Amino acid sequence: MAQVKAVGLIGGGVIGAGWAARLALNGIEVRVFDPDPEAKRKIDTVLENARRAMAKLTLAPLHESAAIHVVPTLEEAVAETDFVQESLPEREELKRDLLAAASRAARRDAVIASSTSGLLPSRLQADMAGPERFVVGHPFNPVYLLPLVEVCGGATTSPGTIEQAIAFYRSIGMHPLHVRQEIDGFIADRLLEAVWREGLWLVNDGVATTTEIDDAIRYGAGLRWSFMGTFLTYRLAGGEAGMRHFLAQFGPALRLPWTKLEAPELTDALIERIAGQSDAQAAGTSIRDLERLRDDCLVAVLQGLRSRNYGAGATLNAHEEKLYETAHRRVMGNGDDVSQPLALHRGRVAPDWIDYNGHMTESRYLQVFGDSSDALFRYVGIDADYHAAGKSYYTVETHIMNLREVGAAEPFHTTTQILAVDDKRLHIFHHLTATREDVVLATAEQMLLHVDIKAGRTVPAEAPILARLQRIAAAHAALPTPDGAGRFVGAPRR
Amino acid sequence: MAQVKAVGLIGGGVIGAGWAARLALNGIEVRVFDPDPEAKRKIDTVLENARRAMAKLTLAPLHESAAIHVVPTLEEAVAETDFVQESLPEREELKRDLLAAASRAARRDAVIASSTSGLLPSRLQADMAGPERFVVGHPFNPVYLLPLVEVCGGATTSPGTIEQAIAFYRSIGMHPLHVRQEIDGFIADRLLEAVWREGLWLVNDGVATTTEIDDAIRYGAGLRWSFMGTFLTYRLAGGEAGMRHFLAQFGPALRLPWTKLEAPELTDALIERIAGQSDAQAAGTSIRDLERLRDDCLVAVLQGLRSRNYGAGATLNAHEEKLYETAHRRVMGNGDDVSQPLALHRGRVAPDWIDYNGHMTESRYLQVFGDSSDALFRYVGIDADYHAAGKSYYTVETHIMNLREVGAAEPFHTTTQILAVDDKRLHIFHHLTATREDVVLATAEQMLLHVDIKAGRTVPAEAPILARLQRIAAAHAALPTPDGAGRFVGAPRR
Repeated sequence: MAQVKAVGLIGGGVIGAGWAARLALNGIEVRVFDPDPEAKRKIDTVLENARRAMAKLTLAPLHESAAIHVVPTLEEAVAETDFVQESLPEREELKRDLLAAASRAARRDAVIASSTSGLLPSRLQADMAGPERFVVGHPFNPVYLLPLVEVCGGATTSPGTIEQAIAFYRSIGMHPLHVRQEIDGFIADRLLEAVWREGLWLVNDGVATTTEIDDAIRYGAGLRWSFMGTFLTYRLAGGEAGMRHFLAQFGPALRLPWTKLEAPELTDALIERIAGQSDAQAAGTSIRDLERLRDDCLVAVLQGLRSRNYGAGATLNAHEEKLYETAHRRVMGNGDDVSQPLALHRGRVAPDWIDYNGHMTESRYLQVFGDSSDALFRYVGIDADYHAAGKSYYTVETHIMNLREVGAAEPFHTTTQILAVDDKRLHIFHHLTATREDVVLATAEQMLLHVDIKAGRTVPAEAPILARLQRIAAAHAALPTPDGAGRFVGAPRR
Repeated sequence: MAQVKAVGLIGGGVIGAGWAARLALNGIEVRVFDPDPEAKRKIDTVLENARRAMAKLTLAPLHESAAIHVVPTLEEAVAETDFVQESLPEREELKRDLLAAASRAARRDAVIASSTSGLLPSRLQADMAGPERFVVGHPFNPVYLLPLVEVCGGATTSPGTIEQAIAFYRSIGMHPLHVRQEIDGFIADRLLEAVWREGLWLVNDGVATTTEIDDAIRYGAGLRWSFMGTFLTYRLAGGEAGMRHFLAQFGPALRLPWTKLEAPELTDALIERIAGQSDAQAAGTSIRDLERLRDDCLVAVLQGLRSRNYGAGATLNAHEEKLYETAHRRVMGNGDDVSQPLALHRGRVAPDWIDYNGHMTESRYLQVFGDSSDALFRYVGIDADYHAAGKSYYTVETHIMNLREVGAAEPFHTTTQILAVDDKRLHIFHHLTATREDVVLATAEQMLLHVDIKAGRTVPAEAPILARLQRIAAAHAALPTPDGAGRFVGAPRR
């Protein structure tokens, strides 16, 4: 198999459409066979979701996206493609029939993969021509975002096919996991199916609702599972003594009726096997370092979810709001002391602000300065009504000095000084400071014009706004001119 | 129970110490009884982890942290406290005995809670004095970061006790989940235990290692579980047709041997119950909006993990590196015509780049200019290996002129002119142009320094890179100086 340029998809449902989107956005042409007359529309909907998600996910230059053709026959989907991916419903007969048909229509060197969640590859490949090029490639929904794909060969699959599939999936940004021993449900779905069936029992027996069962995961263990599986997590639950201690402490619970699933007997041999594999997994990293790795990842995940105000992120937001309730809330009264630069904006460097150098990327500096200008506008009374009336300040000129780098999650704050204001112009200077170290990261000097948005021309700011800006400017006139004000790019340093 | 000022902890292991840390950092005094002579040291270690994590997690003004006292007797731990939390090993006899002792030593109005993962509250409270104030409060490790706590009363627990416990846990930033029906393992551990036991079988049967089992979760379903449970996830897996369709499609798989756990029979009544509860859970949000919520959360989680370069975050990093390498790899040949400003970057204004004025927000201008600088670097041969060797150009100064507004979906391109280059400095000038109207939207003049990232100082660029930059600069020397070069903010317009 040479480099994959075109993939044939059999089935364009949720999983097939997810494959189509991941492939097309990785520059690989796709031909889909799905008899559903709505297939094209449904695939386009998934593609639109995928485009939207990828635009948010990465700043990296994506491949030029390739075409997705919905074709009327299976043969047209697979005939001229390098790789075939079947994503039909989980009915063995159906899959076997169409995989056999695909094997006769596809090129002899094309790998033919199935997205099955758990049907045995040895059975799926039984009727195929050239069954050695068949392999399971089991993805997870949404296929365009989740990296896992389980790769599992059947009795007649060649080792080369498995290698080719792994290399191909990796080339489109996935994490292939080789399931070395063929088993119903592979690895992931054995675990997922256990959770699903236990959950169904809880609903069936009236113990809990679907909402309660979901909440029991997403506010707790689910947060850990986004980066660390059960075995490594439990190694840490054993504390300093690790996995053997955990098994000694929680071993007896395996005999308790905490699930409808019976556990295997925890023999000495099994304990040794688990502890040995767990040692290999930890690869010499101490419990303490693993704890900090876990905590750093949890913090990153919680902060990510806080930005969406969802699940555990909403819990964190609510708790922070309570903590802030006691904090000073500034509403500008006549009595406010405005003799110093105004500290109106603060935040924390978000994980997605980081560039390939590991530091906050340059455009985010300007975002922080822009947010600081917005905070100044709110402070002097420019609100949504003001904007709705078609009035606003527009930035026309900015000069940024980058003084220090800053990494993810660092808290920062800004201060804003008014250098000059007249009825249409506002000349300001921001400092961005890393709060913990108290060092200036960058400065920005900006000129803004007050505009009538619809008319597209400058107009005087409204009187109360102007009066407040002037009062601050008058107080700030006593401050020294900031370092860098009036500077042009490349001017000699003072 | 008034506002809780002091909590008595019975047991200072991984869970007890986690409670101590969460409580102390929320300003609540803690008294711990644990006969382990190492208890104090172990608790201090967990507290240190917790302090470190909280400092990264939130900027909110935390409570002044309260003292943690390790005391020699159970009585001293509980006598003067408002709330008692027991976190002993999962042995019913042991817990019963110490809970009974605590019930006699504690104040009559103190709530007494157990951290048990799954023992029945009706049995744990049986020997207590005042068993109506007993409740299960089951947390998750690390207790100081994970918000979930399952709250479950026993046969003699009063409703007021449950209310008090829920209010208390919420006040310390947790998400209390009321387990309404007493059951072994409650809700969370029934699911966790099913995963754990299925995983043990896989190791026992030699199907997979602990590493492979963990990877089968953390690169796939685990990412979803950090914000969305199985039921809502599967509602989305059903596509536009939702939960009923999913049950119809995957119902037959419940009879397949995909786990050792037998499923309940999927009767019409059970389907109706699940679908009804799932509808209530979705609360009218469409499948499409839920998909986007899911995707936004996945993006946030993946970006968080990318910042830690761990698990799926490491997969994303590796894929981005490949994209950076390949997408813009135009290896500069000697024959390239570089007499004009270089057109190396183009794109389209994304919908989420638009601000409250309806135009591209100012920080995105700098993003486009930064992307143009990156395109120049790649053009002259600076690649991931170069960055991996710790060398990079850093922007130190930027001057932007905003000339025209631009709306969503507009195509744009940039051109880049080299004004000057020496071994450490690079002085460039970008134009951003709206492609359709061919009008200049903004310009940026930038000074960059070539740095050794680890050493944190400027160093000369490597010879081949410098030679290419110098060849371009020599050609660009014949071009006119761009309008705005050398300008400072507020200078009179020419």
